[in-house]
Parts: sequence; structure tokens; C-alpha cells
Amino acid sequence: MDRMSQRTRLTPEQRREQLLDLGIRLFAHHSLDEISIDVVAREAGISRGLLYHYFGDKMAFREAVVRRAADALVAQTAPPATGEPVERLLASMTAYVDFVDANYEGYVSMVRGAASDPVLREIYDEAFGALGLRIFDAGADFVEDTPAARLMVRGWQAMSEELVLSWKADPAGLSREELLGVLAGSLPVLLEMLPERTRRE
Amino acid sequence: MDRMSQRTRLTPEQRREQLLDLGIRLFAHHSLDEISIDVVAREAGISRGLLYHYFGDKMAFREAVVRRAADALVAQTAPPATGEPVERLLASMTAYVDFVDANYEGYVSMVRGAASDPVLREIYDEAFGALGLRIFDAGADFVEDTPAARLMVRGWQAMSEELVLSWKADPAGLSREELLGVLAGSLPVLLEMLPERTRRE
Repeated sequence: MDRMSQRTRLTPEQRREQLLDLGIRLFAHHSLDEISIDVVAREAGISRGLLYHYFGDKMAFREAVVRRAADALVAQTAPPATGEPVERLLASMTAYVDFVDANYEGYVSMVRGAASDPVLREIYDEAFGALGLRIFDAGADFVEDTPAARLMVRGWQAMSEELVLSWKADPAGLSREELLGVLAGSLPVLLEMLPERTRRE
Repeated sequence: MDRMSQRTRLTPEQRREQLLDLGIRLFAHHSLDEISIDVVAREAGISRGLLYHYFGDKMAFREAVVRRAADALVAQTAPPATGEPVERLLASMTAYVDFVDANYEGYVSMVRGAASDPVLREIYDEAFGALGLRIFDAGADFVEDTPAARLMVRGWQAMSEELVLSWKADPAGLSREELLGVLAGSLPVLLEMLPERTRRE
């Protein structure tokens, strides 16, 4: 991993961005607990004091990294603008599995750690909500935007998160394509299980 | 809530049981953070020092309460020994919704708090695992015990937990019976989505 030259003249905003980029690179293969001020300062070739100067404190840096990771997750899993709804959902879920693949350690600690820290919880909840609502924005023809459908989408998201994380730990004989088939195929089926009147606006 | 008489002579084990019973009663309507040594000591009519004497420290008491709550959840949701598999699953899920109903505040904080504290995490994971494996022990005819089926049961459990907690916060137009129908009805459907070869031993 490159060290940033201390001699490079950067604006505070550029330096902040560089440090966040470094945080995101660390996030890929480290839990949030492991992204310590010491490690980041050493990797960046700057003093701990300077890091505190840019981010205030250790938690603020960690929160900024998680916010950036959550934004990246939402951006990277955006479904393609055209295509059959189920194909677009499959493309989005493929990008989700790719993201978890590439950022497993950080993502697991984000999902788990979000529970205890209120700020992380808020970031996680926002991303979870945005990912879910996108199902309705995408104009999927298999679902209308009703309270019951939103509830079911939340349940399906929780299932998908658990399935992908457990599958990463032990694939249980399922190929990546088979996992993706279950993830994308289950949402329409689950929505069909809702009582008819709760599925229509 | 009754205060325990300080004059009653109890063995240490009886006193410990009494304090745990009190913790469980508090768990029903309070988050784990709110079950403080101060509150429990006051409710029990004993000194804080005596509570520390019985449990070591605040976290040990909290962990003992969560362990008891997890045991109660597993016990209360045991499916009936006879009947059609889907009916038994429905009975078990009804008991699960009843448990969450009766212990909402404590249960939410247990699910959330489990993420940060390693001991709580272990208790939660154990209960989650026990609830899932019971699906296979129960001799349900719609599922064989394969790695892929276990993976899917975990996903279904995560979905069920999210659906029940979200439904408690906002029923979204779904009656209790309709929610239960989705919970019990979705498991066989989801298992059917697994590739054939991963569903047979």
C-alpha cells in the first residue's frame, strides 16, 4: 500500500479524501476495530495528531469510513436502468455479492457493529432503507409500493444479508450462480405470499 | 412489582434465582441498558453490593438474564410433538410472535446488543442455531437435513426476525394471522427454491 508523501502539498479537503480512501482500502480486509488511528497514521505516513486534526477523534474517522462504504454499497448495487425487472434485480444482487466478496471483513463488522454504536446504526439503517426502497423505484412490475410490500422487502433484505454472509463462511454446496438465483428469485415469490389486498395500492 | 423481603432467609442459590426472575420481568419492558444494577437492587430491596456479590459484575448479571431469556425463547417455541409438519411450524411461530410481543423491549435490545458484546453474541448465536436445527429435529417432511437446507433455514430465520420486529413497530396492514401465515408458509417455499441435488442427503 502506497505511503502518501508528507512533502506533498494538499488542501485539507484533499488530505481528508486521501485518508478516507485509505480507510476504505483497509475496510476491505479489516474489521472496524482493526482500523485504528495508529494503523491509519502509519499507513498514511502522518502523525496521529494530524489524523485527529482532520477527523476529530477515532470514532469520527470510523464513522466517515462506514458512511463512505455504505455510499459505495448503494452506488455499486444500483440496478441497470433498462431490462426485465427480474434481470435487473439479479444484476443488483450480483453487485451486492461482489461488494461483500471484496469487503468481507469490513462489511461483517459494519453489520454487526452497527448494532451498538448509534451513529453506525443510523448509517447502516439508512443504507438498508435505501437499498430496499430502490426495489420500488426501479419500476419492478412484480411489486407495488404498499406498506406490506415494504415490510416484506425488509424481511427479504435481512434474509439476503444472512444468506450471503453465511454462504461466504460456508457455501454449503451452492455455487455463486445458484445463490444468486435464490436471492433474486425469492423476492417475487415472497411478495406473492402477501394477502392480495395488501399488495395493491 | 413485589419487593422481596430482606428478612426472608434464602439460600444463595434461591436468592440468585429470585434476582434472575426479577431481571427477566424487567427484560420484558426494558432494554438491557436499562436493567442497571441500581434498578435491580432497588426493585429487589437489596444493596448494590449484595447484587455484585451474587453475580460478580453488571455485565455478568446482564448475561445471566439474556441466557435465561434465550432459554425461555427456545423452550416456549418448542413445536408440539404431534401434528402435520406445517401445523407444528405454525404453532412454533405463533409462540415466537407471542414471546416477542411479551418481551419486545428486551428482545430488541438482545438482538441488537448481541452484535457488540462477545458473550451476548454467543448466547444469541446459540439460541439462533438451536431454533434453526429444531426444524430438522422435528421431522418435518418438507425438508431433509443438508448443508444447503441449513443455510436456507438461517436466512428464513433472519427474515422472520426482521418481519416480526418490523411488524411490531408497524403492522403495515397485516393481521397477526396473516403475518403468521407468511412466516410458516415461506419456509417450505424457500427450501423448494434450492437446487434439487442440494436438498437431498
